[in-house]
Amino acid sequence: MSRIDELNKILRSLQAGTPDIEAAALISEDGLVIASVLPQQLEEIRIAGMSATLLSLGTRASAELGRGNLKQVIIRGDRGYIVMINASPGTLLLSLSTQDARLGLIFLEMERAAASIKNIF
Amino acid sequence: MSRIDELNKILRSLQAGTPDIEAAALISEDGLVIASVLPQQLEEIRIAGMSATLLSLGTRASAELGRGNLKQVIIRGDRGYIVMINASPGTLLLSLSTQDARLGLIFLEMERAAASIKNIF
Repeated sequence: MSRIDELNKILRSLQAGTPDIEAAALISEDGLVIASVLPQQLEEIRIAGMSATLLSLGTRASAELGRGNLKQVIIRGDRGYIVMINASPGTLLLSLSTQDARLGLIFLEMERAAASIKNIF
Repeated sequence: MSRIDELNKILRSLQAGTPDIEAAALISEDGLVIASVLPQQLEEIRIAGMSATLLSLGTRASAELGRGNLKQVIIRGDRGYIVMINASPGTLLLSLSTQDARLGLIFLEMERAAASIKNIF
């Protein structure tokens, strides 16, 4: 199995195994999509750029405001959540979930997926 | 009581009434501190700029990724949380809290403070 096939498998499994997660993507720190399971209407390039900036700024804010090393950046809207975490060095994992999502479970499943990504990437 | 005295009172009451909240600030959307109860070692100007950018980018991300109107931007580090919400038009309310903070309570208290700020600002 190629590396990209393995990444797609991890993302599909994250999405399929967690009903609250509607979409997921692996994004490079310079703002490019590496692999994704995203609804077709979403514009990958814009998402990737915004996510990379949010994670980078969140990392700085956490350190400078005495909150330590970044664990998650969470954007909560009235129709759901965007959660971003660091995956392998230089990449971030993003998920989109519903408004009634159980965040604790999402964090756990994303950490598991990130650990799998670190093993192959 | 002057407007700034009233704002300081709201922020002090938010911090004192919620033991998990260590610090709070009201920041303009162009990145300036309007009022704050922050530990002295924090550099207000940097905090305000980063927060304004995070809230603005979070608002765009929430809308563009189908999550609706922004409710909160949450940065979680291994030593605590940064929570940002919209306060009165053109201002945001920021709180810094401990790692074992009860987020639901913090959201509630911040919404109450934001409602008071809307009344005077």
